[in-house]
Amino acid sequence: LVEGVHFDLAFTPLKHLGYKAVAVNVSDIAAMYGFPKQLTVSIGVSNRFSVEAVDALYDGIKMACEAYEVDLVGGDTTASASGIVISVTILGEVDKDKLVKRNSAKEKEIICVTGDLGAAYMGLLVLEREKQVFKANPDMQPSLEGLDYILERQLKPEARKDIANMLKGIKVKATSMIDISDGLASDIMHICKGSKLGCNIYTDKLPIDTVTINVASEFQIDPNTSVMNGGEDYELLFTIRQDDYEKIKDISGISVVGHMTDEASGMQLLTPDGLSVELKALGWDSLKEDTPDKT
Amino acid sequence: LVEGVHFDLAFTPLKHLGYKAVAVNVSDIAAMYGFPKQLTVSIGVSNRFSVEAVDALYDGIKMACEAYEVDLVGGDTTASASGIVISVTILGEVDKDKLVKRNSAKEKEIICVTGDLGAAYMGLLVLEREKQVFKANPDMQPSLEGLDYILERQLKPEARKDIANMLKGIKVKATSMIDISDGLASDIMHICKGSKLGCNIYTDKLPIDTVTINVASEFQIDPNTSVMNGGEDYELLFTIRQDDYEKIKDISGISVVGHMTDEASGMQLLTPDGLSVELKALGWDSLKEDTPDKT
Repeated sequence: LVEGVHFDLAFTPLKHLGYKAVAVNVSDIAAMYGFPKQLTVSIGVSNRFSVEAVDALYDGIKMACEAYEVDLVGGDTTASASGIVISVTILGEVDKDKLVKRNSAKEKEIICVTGDLGAAYMGLLVLEREKQVFKANPDMQPSLEGLDYILERQLKPEARKDIANMLKGIKVKATSMIDISDGLASDIMHICKGSKLGCNIYTDKLPIDTVTINVASEFQIDPNTSVMNGGEDYELLFTIRQDDYEKIKDISGISVVGHMTDEASGMQLLTPDGLSVELKALGWDSLKEDTPDKT
Repeated sequence: LVEGVHFDLAFTPLKHLGYKAVAVNVSDIAAMYGFPKQLTVSIGVSNRFSVEAVDALYDGIKMACEAYEVDLVGGDTTASASGIVISVTILGEVDKDKLVKRNSAKEKEIICVTGDLGAAYMGLLVLEREKQVFKANPDMQPSLEGLDYILERQLKPEARKDIANMLKGIKVKATSMIDISDGLASDIMHICKGSKLGCNIYTDKLPIDTVTINVASEFQIDPNTSVMNGGEDYELLFTIRQDDYEKIKDISGISVVGHMTDEASGMQLLTPDGLSVELKALGWDSLKEDTPDKT
């Protein structure tokens, strides 16, 4: 996590940043049916930061370690030429026969997501807007009323460490899984490419919170765009066998959003009026694709 | 490893930097009688670097992974606002009963070091001098003749992964151990503080290469200062029981440099003419002391 690239300290409290640095790594482990065990945190920090600032960062890290039951076992603290850089390495465990990867979906399997999507990006847009307002007029109070949910989704995301157990409880095993860190488009693409398949995703099935919808409308953005390309939701995206559909369809907090198709059909986003748009991931995807275990 | 803090790309080839990033981590594992197994490398890099530059860095990383028999199992690549930041996490294994830490030296035990010390810092001084010469007159050829050894010590240090086996071969078990990354003064201080003891170090026992001595003289620096406070030698510093002295005293590449005393005696550097100087570590030590497993 690099200051100025992944976070803006103008609106990111350091304690939240510490929490998020851990949560996004736990999320990667959770997406493999794993349980996080230990982590190391290395921090590069420039002399413009006080000891209190670094303490606040570590407070957030410790809070997340407790919340996710992970032990902080080491790391390093060093000087940086400018700004803060945080590198977290996490170790997790998983039974060999339970491990789930991104490359094991099968044709016709059902695509599910947890929670709701697109909120973190809307939270970011609001924070950036208020930063500009504040810059223009430092006496203005930020107008964040009623936006707690999307702000928290951006500033203090939670990893879905609970999903593996929930699925076990209803006797469903995901056949492939990934966490949604870069947006649904980019992350389903990893599953499709890994599994050499295509997919159909239905826009009317996408789980979106009403605050997300309202704020998207304020910004004149299609909320589906935030879901598909916003990123940082840290929900899980997984596939299940068709036979398991009945077990999952009424589970609260799980949405069925599409199904896997053959590779030749490509990755399609389908609207209720029958329009089909070829799925494209924006932004970092092309760079990050080759990295083995990117967040 | 932060550009501008830990390395200067004006004189550090990226391939060497990659190698060093791995070696210094292997060194930490070796200092616990451990064997390195896996590592993750996360890199933040700004857009002023070409793909070829990043490839060169990874070439060095891969070369070190082969040399030290470590598997590169993951990591991340991301943008940085400026410069290169490299974060390496290494995993090693050690039999529980063989693990050696810094806090287990006993009074009267003998202090040993591997190899020779102070060369890496002299290499750094030469590289910095030549950088200044080049800046003043870009047509000047750098004068590095005969200095290969100290340049290599600075640019491409090796981790002493061989020492655990060597000690096993002569049936000596170190009672405490650390790698010399910050200079002998700082690193013996970790053993003394961890073990709640003092130490006597004898300047005439310090192993120093002749090139190091000659270059120190050119710079009008006491070579002992480079040994004590230069750092980056990545040799091992360890204590052994007095009974083991006979087994180790004639081993090539191992030097006995002093012994542990009681805490009240403090940490003393003794010269042949009987002068005693209280040992002080310079630089980063006060900041780094609290970090559990700093390099």
